Amino acid sequence: MTQYRIGLLAFPAMTQLDLTGPLQVFAGLPNAETHVLWKTLDPIKTHGGLTLVPDTTLADCPQLDVICVPGGTGVLDLMDDPEVLSFLRTQATEATFVGSICTGALVLGAAGLLRGKKATTHWAWTDLLVPLGAIPSEGRVVRDGKFMTGGGVTAGIDFALTMVAELAGQDIAESIQLGIEYAPAPPFESGSPDTARPEILAAVRTRMTSTRVEREARVAKVAAAMA
Amino acid sequence: MTQYRIGLLAFPAMTQLDLTGPLQVFAGLPNAETHVLWKTLDPIKTHGGLTLVPDTTLADCPQLDVICVPGGTGVLDLMDDPEVLSFLRTQATEATFVGSICTGALVLGAAGLLRGKKATTHWAWTDLLVPLGAIPSEGRVVRDGKFMTGGGVTAGIDFALTMVAELAGQDIAESIQLGIEYAPAPPFESGSPDTARPEILAAVRTRMTSTRVEREARVAKVAAAMA
Repeated sequence: MTQYRIGLLAFPAMTQLDLTGPLQVFAGLPNAETHVLWKTLDPIKTHGGLTLVPDTTLADCPQLDVICVPGGTGVLDLMDDPEVLSFLRTQATEATFVGSICTGALVLGAAGLLRGKKATTHWAWTDLLVPLGAIPSEGRVVRDGKFMTGGGVTAGIDFALTMVAELAGQDIAESIQLGIEYAPAPPFESGSPDTARPEILAAVRTRMTSTRVEREARVAKVAAAMA
Repeated sequence: MTQYRIGLLAFPAMTQLDLTGPLQVFAGLPNAETHVLWKTLDPIKTHGGLTLVPDTTLADCPQLDVICVPGGTGVLDLMDDPEVLSFLRTQATEATFVGSICTGALVLGAAGLLRGKKATTHWAWTDLLVPLGAIPSEGRVVRDGKFMTGGGVTAGIDFALTMVAELAGQDIAESIQLGIEYAPAPPFESGSPDTARPEILAAVRTRMTSTRVEREARVAKVAAAMA
């Protein structure tokens, strides 16, 4: 008996851990059916050396209980992709939860789904939520009604455990956490801009400069079309 | 200029996050070339709803600086697979680091590589390291010379950040940690047998009963052949 249909969008140049972290958590949920979704079933080259194969096309996807959108450099094109935005809007209407990890929130925002909603995204991009109508909020996982957004990349694991607890109860979430031995022990304290050394933060921001220019322009264009 | 060649073994019924977590970390390492390795380049169905595509066959794999073996139910067959064990032994001779995540340590052990070495694996299987000649040791990431072993599933992220710091220095590891926003905030304290509620631990152990019978038998067989 399938109790939960959970779909995760896959797309070229996505950050694979945004999807694979939550997917591993959802795999431990009894009676769940997961879908890795894209326009076609052709293999997808992600950012970071992994090629993965979707199992369900957007056209063939059943109504989901949970739809999640990962992030990565590929979100740039998704933000004004009518097929993807329309798919997300349609699924969101009946879904129990609509989620994003990392910059996947920009895609939900571009679909008009985060208007007036509290949300988060990767720490470097929270300001871009504003022109899309969302309210940037503190928290590794932010919930506003049926919308649940996670921070950058590895936040997807916290996001998915939180989601499982909402769907199926805390006992099941705790069992999954134990199964994946999620007792994190980062070797350094560099995981957020508040704790990273200033020179590390500066170097990472510098590397993001060209991406920022592109994303700001795309968000402005999308926001103008939404107005 | 490629400074680091890093290979991660992929195989049927692996736990995908054992590979995808470290791979995302390694993707941030400048001048690194990553390889997702298996006997063929055919898509592989992993445990937990992800199909991934290897990019390099074992036969075509160059000498690696780092070779990593993930875990999962598929390790059962790897433990007496001559092609895989021979590949690992050959790579291990010249590699700078030989690593495992989760029950991948049982494969390194079956290859005879952990004899007399301190090692760890997923919390539920540490006792199985003993017949393979390893010395089970406390720690989410355990290093003994060139051998670095990580705990269960999500430990792969800590493992890979530790590995990057060893290879390329702490600054680069900290930059990657910030890029993937690895400031974990698990919603529950259930990630290890020491912190999980007793009834959760008991339930997870019960679910592992049949896997335990199979793995104990395979480890005993492999250990007898090694003696």
